[in-house]
Amino acid sequence: MARHDEIRAEMMRRINAGEWPVNRDIPSEVELGVEFGVARGTIQRALSSLVAQGLIERRRRAGSRVVPRTAHASRLSIPLIREEIEDRGFAYGYRLLDRAVVGGPVPHLRLCCLHIADGQPFQLERRVISLTALPQAEAQPFDMSGPNEWLVREVPASRVTTRISAEAADPDSAAMLALPPGAPLLVVARQTFLADAPLTRVRLLHPAESYAVTTESF
Amino acid sequence: MARHDEIRAEMMRRINAGEWPVNRDIPSEVELGVEFGVARGTIQRALSSLVAQGLIERRRRAGSRVVPRTAHASRLSIPLIREEIEDRGFAYGYRLLDRAVVGGPVPHLRLCCLHIADGQPFQLERRVISLTALPQAEAQPFDMSGPNEWLVREVPASRVTTRISAEAADPDSAAMLALPPGAPLLVVARQTFLADAPLTRVRLLHPAESYAVTTESF
Repeated sequence: MARHDEIRAEMMRRINAGEWPVNRDIPSEVELGVEFGVARGTIQRALSSLVAQGLIERRRRAGSRVVPRTAHASRLSIPLIREEIEDRGFAYGYRLLDRAVVGGPVPHLRLCCLHIADGQPFQLERRVISLTALPQAEAQPFDMSGPNEWLVREVPASRVTTRISAEAADPDSAAMLALPPGAPLLVVARQTFLADAPLTRVRLLHPAESYAVTTESF
Repeated sequence: MARHDEIRAEMMRRINAGEWPVNRDIPSEVELGVEFGVARGTIQRALSSLVAQGLIERRRRAGSRVVPRTAHASRLSIPLIREEIEDRGFAYGYRLLDRAVVGGPVPHLRLCCLHIADGQPFQLERRVISLTALPQAEAQPFDMSGPNEWLVREVPASRVTTRISAEAADPDSAAMLALPPGAPLLVVARQTFLADAPLTRVRLLHPAESYAVTTESF
């Protein structure tokens, strides 16, 4: 092991053990050079990798300090369901179960679609598309592929809110997902806006045993 | 309404209606100035706010174009449970249900804690802390406040993986959450690492009707 790697490991141990407490200055590079009996460049090299890992923060004209573990934020990305199913090595299937144009003061297109993995129901998509905001949706049959693919391709970037929750399957959804009523579902609900105008909202229902949302943060 | 706002609204309508299709150049600023009968600066002002919203992309030495709605990514942040409960206006309560030091080749501290909102079980925390990585955890009783608060305060930043899923409550967890067995739970599972060393892993179990994870993206 190179000397700077040894020093880095010892620094990690000190951070870990609380010998270098969070939010407090660690010894200066000069002091550490003396302690470890190495040139300042070797200390800097060891510190740099801890800085890169986000464990140590360097401050100009001040010391370096140990960074607290803040409320971690991760990037959450929900891929296209077709890609998600194919990435798992399953054959993707699609069925349009219901399509209705609903008039009234807020005309919208109501869709219910099933996304299938190797013949098994994987996701039930219950969607509403605003025909005020997206009148061109009415001409789309959505019988061969899902509205999400069309939306991603045709509708420009905007604001999206996401809510991930669990619920017991109602009898109707349970039947479409080939589950017993009351079976636990993971539900991803999204609303999409162009500026402040609502474009579409969707509830994506998944059998609990076959789906999870995962993220990673540094 | 200012003229540039009117022009911006008309541009939004065109984007929305597909008259300015995704991934295609829109007319030049000069052409738009002629069409709307305004100075180029007014066109630029209208375009700038669409650029700021991420709907239009300006390219050097090329035209501007409508940005496709890509697979949206959002920031997912899971706050401290105490703050989450208090932010909802509930009184926070805490109970340590189980604490055990487990020896063997991978010594760890096993904890089971209940987080309470206005007297109702809100979150069951099932946690394991590595005593190889964090030997100082063994001295913590965790009888008055949860291990997450201690970890956030004492343990430096690192990598976190998160998995959000749904499941039916096993009889043991159901009893602690005052739910019938099989009730749907929203489960947030997290693993925390310092560099590659696992520090702690936790399963946070929530009654489905009282909890959701929400995010917003632009």
